[in-house]
Amino acid sequence: MSGLFISFEGGEGSGKTTQTDLLVEHLEAETGRRVVRLHEPGGTPLGEYIRDWVKAQSAPLTLQAELLLFVASRAELVKRVIRPELEADSIVVADRYADSTTVYQGYARGLPLKDVRSANGIATGGVWPDVTFLLDVLPDASLRRAGLQMSFDAEGRVEPLPRADDTGKRRFEELSPGFHQKVRDGYLRLAKAEPERWVVVDGQQAVEEVHAQVWERVQGLLRSV
Amino acid sequence: MSGLFISFEGGEGSGKTTQTDLLVEHLEAETGRRVVRLHEPGGTPLGEYIRDWVKAQSAPLTLQAELLLFVASRAELVKRVIRPELEADSIVVADRYADSTTVYQGYARGLPLKDVRSANGIATGGVWPDVTFLLDVLPDASLRRAGLQMSFDAEGRVEPLPRADDTGKRRFEELSPGFHQKVRDGYLRLAKAEPERWVVVDGQQAVEEVHAQVWERVQGLLRSV
Repeated sequence: MSGLFISFEGGEGSGKTTQTDLLVEHLEAETGRRVVRLHEPGGTPLGEYIRDWVKAQSAPLTLQAELLLFVASRAELVKRVIRPELEADSIVVADRYADSTTVYQGYARGLPLKDVRSANGIATGGVWPDVTFLLDVLPDASLRRAGLQMSFDAEGRVEPLPRADDTGKRRFEELSPGFHQKVRDGYLRLAKAEPERWVVVDGQQAVEEVHAQVWERVQGLLRSV
Repeated sequence: MSGLFISFEGGEGSGKTTQTDLLVEHLEAETGRRVVRLHEPGGTPLGEYIRDWVKAQSAPLTLQAELLLFVASRAELVKRVIRPELEADSIVVADRYADSTTVYQGYARGLPLKDVRSANGIATGGVWPDVTFLLDVLPDASLRRAGLQMSFDAEGRVEPLPRADDTGKRRFEELSPGFHQKVRDGYLRLAKAEPERWVVVDGQQAVEEVHAQVWERVQGLLRSV
């Protein structure tokens, strides 16, 4: 495949969406290529449907069902969007991808890593980003940015703030600092295990500084392909 | 778990639904126990939702997404229904369960068996039937029973006959005798590999004769637990 596949990863409030936007704009301005922005689980009819359904439920799904639904939607996304776009020489920029599942469902929520990896393996069919930027922030800073200071609604439920998987729902565990530490540790492990793909960027720098570091690496990739 | 978990498997038109009904009636009449009849992907809100969605689509899902959706629905069913019912000493009778996925998505449609097994493993969490009846019929007989003689609608699409996974949709491949041979071969392999769980019954016998053989085995299990 001749396209370029870039993903952003990191905890909530680490700046992924901002950096995705900046990179997409920059790529569109500087290259003549088609740039496709992805934000799972959107991007396919199945993904949208799953997101709507999860949003509408009063009780959370079992962890296993949640894992399998998200990878089902990813399987469609890979086959219907990512693979064809890459084959057509597009640049695909994803605000989260399969690594989020490994970190959130595996490292942080405790599903067996081998289960998460095999589910991801079925869904991706071996399609992984050429480069993944980990926007690394300390959990405290990340929580502050995401505005997660214990916001409850009138019935004592947690307010539906944007959550990792963008379903508008949040599990109580996600409010604990321990959870966010596990997320950060999980990401750092993945980055260490596969240094040729991952670039760890200090996400607590100014937005422009983070983007400059991202852009430098992306330019290098654009020259090499 | 102190309950009893029984499943029926076999190709289309092999008589599973009829035998499930007969067994459920017989169990309700002869035992004082709660009997729960299951037919995937129904049985949970997620299962119903997935079925409705798949029915509404004009294009079939990718094989991978289809596999993952069905096992997602199974994960909910196991955790919310099957496991609690078995823990409460119920008898659960399933018209198809995880073996259908192994056979249809794996042996017949060609997804790697290791993928299908790992997806099933995540979903079932190790909850497998105490006994599985394979209603074995020759593919020809099975197709005749299911009325599958090339029925097309006005636009040349295959008529929505009941299909293996009960979505009301059918892939063209399912009309080929080769497909049904693969289904039968797959089931026979599973039965051979795990003879302590599987009971192969000649499904071309009279309905009452098949039920008598099923009932004999079930009675033995009821005495032993």
